[in-house]
Amino acid sequence: MPTAIPEDSVGIVEPQIARFDTPLELACGRTLDSYELIYETYGTLNAERSNAVLICHALSGTHHAAGYHSMDDRKPGWWDAYIGPGKCIDTHKFFVVCLNNLGGCNGSTGPTSINPETGTTYGPDFPVMTVPDWVESQRRLSDYLQIDVWAAIIGGSLGGMQALQWSIHHPERMRNTAVIAAAPRLTAQNIAFNEVARQAIMSDPEFHNGRYAEHNTLPRQGLRLARMVGHITYLSEDSMGSKFGRDLRTDKINYGYDVEFQVESYLRYQGDMFSGSFDANTYLLMTKALDYYDPSAEFNGKLSDAVARARSHFLVISFSTDWRFSPARSEEIVNALTEAGKNVCYACIESPHGHDAFLIPNERYEAIFSAFMNRVADQTAGGVS
Amino acid sequence: MPTAIPEDSVGIVEPQIARFDTPLELACGRTLDSYELIYETYGTLNAERSNAVLICHALSGTHHAAGYHSMDDRKPGWWDAYIGPGKCIDTHKFFVVCLNNLGGCNGSTGPTSINPETGTTYGPDFPVMTVPDWVESQRRLSDYLQIDVWAAIIGGSLGGMQALQWSIHHPERMRNTAVIAAAPRLTAQNIAFNEVARQAIMSDPEFHNGRYAEHNTLPRQGLRLARMVGHITYLSEDSMGSKFGRDLRTDKINYGYDVEFQVESYLRYQGDMFSGSFDANTYLLMTKALDYYDPSAEFNGKLSDAVARARSHFLVISFSTDWRFSPARSEEIVNALTEAGKNVCYACIESPHGHDAFLIPNERYEAIFSAFMNRVADQTAGGVS
Repeated sequence: MPTAIPEDSVGIVEPQIARFDTPLELACGRTLDSYELIYETYGTLNAERSNAVLICHALSGTHHAAGYHSMDDRKPGWWDAYIGPGKCIDTHKFFVVCLNNLGGCNGSTGPTSINPETGTTYGPDFPVMTVPDWVESQRRLSDYLQIDVWAAIIGGSLGGMQALQWSIHHPERMRNTAVIAAAPRLTAQNIAFNEVARQAIMSDPEFHNGRYAEHNTLPRQGLRLARMVGHITYLSEDSMGSKFGRDLRTDKINYGYDVEFQVESYLRYQGDMFSGSFDANTYLLMTKALDYYDPSAEFNGKLSDAVARARSHFLVISFSTDWRFSPARSEEIVNALTEAGKNVCYACIESPHGHDAFLIPNERYEAIFSAFMNRVADQTAGGVS
Repeated sequence: MPTAIPEDSVGIVEPQIARFDTPLELACGRTLDSYELIYETYGTLNAERSNAVLICHALSGTHHAAGYHSMDDRKPGWWDAYIGPGKCIDTHKFFVVCLNNLGGCNGSTGPTSINPETGTTYGPDFPVMTVPDWVESQRRLSDYLQIDVWAAIIGGSLGGMQALQWSIHHPERMRNTAVIAAAPRLTAQNIAFNEVARQAIMSDPEFHNGRYAEHNTLPRQGLRLARMVGHITYLSEDSMGSKFGRDLRTDKINYGYDVEFQVESYLRYQGDMFSGSFDANTYLLMTKALDYYDPSAEFNGKLSDAVARARSHFLVISFSTDWRFSPARSEEIVNALTEAGKNVCYACIESPHGHDAFLIPNERYEAIFSAFMNRVADQTAGGVS
């Protein structure tokens, strides 16, 4: 909890809700007749409406990217290190929008929302979402906010996939794209980890085929395991090693099946926290959106053809110890953009923090990100791309 | 099932059982008053009893390392590619012994055995085992078999840790050590994966604190998940990619939570097979033995001091794409042995198969392993080391 709001914070923020009553056709063939998106904004939209930046969130992210909801908040939004006055995404210059994706569990319509057709929560009846579905729902939010052209669309991890998809799908509605710690599509190993997480949830007897709410219960153990295995893939082997090593929780080995090493205690804690706050059906949905994403699929696997339509300037950033989406995966994006003749700036940032590095303060990352955003701001001030 | 036994097979083999009635004091402070070890032998012990080779198994290994139990066997023993007439561990030259470790579930005394004190299965009351405990039980098996000095002690993965521990603990009872695809101790990430596996098993409602046998059930879902997550770590990202890529199980995306990609189907199959044949308490015990192993712990973390007592010649082998126990981990062993002035031969084998590479035919691996074993045989023939 901040005793005072830090000077470089956007301060106390309040989420807003946008309601949409035009049916949204989804990749799965189903339609959402109406839905709500919860979002936050930081900074001020200029008179030309040209300084808006859209932030897309990752698997367990939310609309709450920066600032505090109240003075009682223990922590600021999930990307507070990078959004605020004077920060990389400088709220003195930009009007920043971050939403909770459709299918989420933080306020946008999702599995925990009431299905108007049945009067009970959607649960497993909520449709499977894809990255292109999200981009379309975000395009409608842009219309709702009367933002014709985004100065930049930015995302890390699954959020980076959304930013990339925006650049392909609505090239005329954005000037810049930042794709951070992402991949153009999952590998078999990525899918395999997601499948373990899903099986952990779905095999929990409290899952009840996703109708746990109707049974007045939660598949906590499954969600806890899913998060534990996910968490290992977010950290690097080195960062886990330097943080925990083989440190014991007590002063000696106890030779039993309770927690012995600090790293076990940490993982259990992470799993417990997450399973008490996140919806299991949303977790399944988010991992599926990751699995399905592959913009090259319509182009015989040729990513450079998929990105040919893009018109924005690109920033691609990877992190040296990220093994979930390794630098080589970002370089696939860079190579495809280069082959397609796009303007792309790429950096692989040295960091010990694995995939999570995209959330963590880092001098070189900040310098490169800021330089890119300063150019975005200069374009905005000039009024042209 | 072989229609005929291959010429380079050890043929039909029969396990034997050795019973021990001298109490075995364990690292955990408890004692096993009596126990049985199941083992197999291949080849013939020479008159000098100098050509015996001990094979130590990995996490889910057994005493059945080579040959067939019957003409109905679908597969030979787990290391048949490397043990047999004319193979690396040549049964024309060596008398090969492989046992199921204490705490196992394939015939040696373990959680599924009857506890003489209660008349029911041990279950969770079976003591926690460590690598040094296993080495001591194997030392007794050596006495039982009247093998004073092993020509070589060999193991892959957790088996390599046992071979390494033998070289430290009973240097006078062996001439050569082969440590393959192993590590001198687990990293925090290794322990974290083991902890996810254990939590999957222990949080299965059918686990009943390990007393599932008394409840006439099995924690199949937990064991299935444990194996799925383990299996991902045995394969390389590349081998999963080339084997499965993003291949779909049917000809189109179904947008649901059933199997969509081939890799999901494969993982589920692996989990299902394993959960029907392996004991959950044994799985817990084996992962704990891995976690606890650290010969450097008594030497202020200095592995070179720990191996100072070793007298054998060493072969250390790692595999280029093994990320469970990467080449760097084998090189820690090599560096410690070198620093301690030991005779060590090291090779990192190029292989796409990740950790599992130690089980899979590979020309360079076979050439190096054979060259080492030929020298072992020459020493044996000469009667001196």
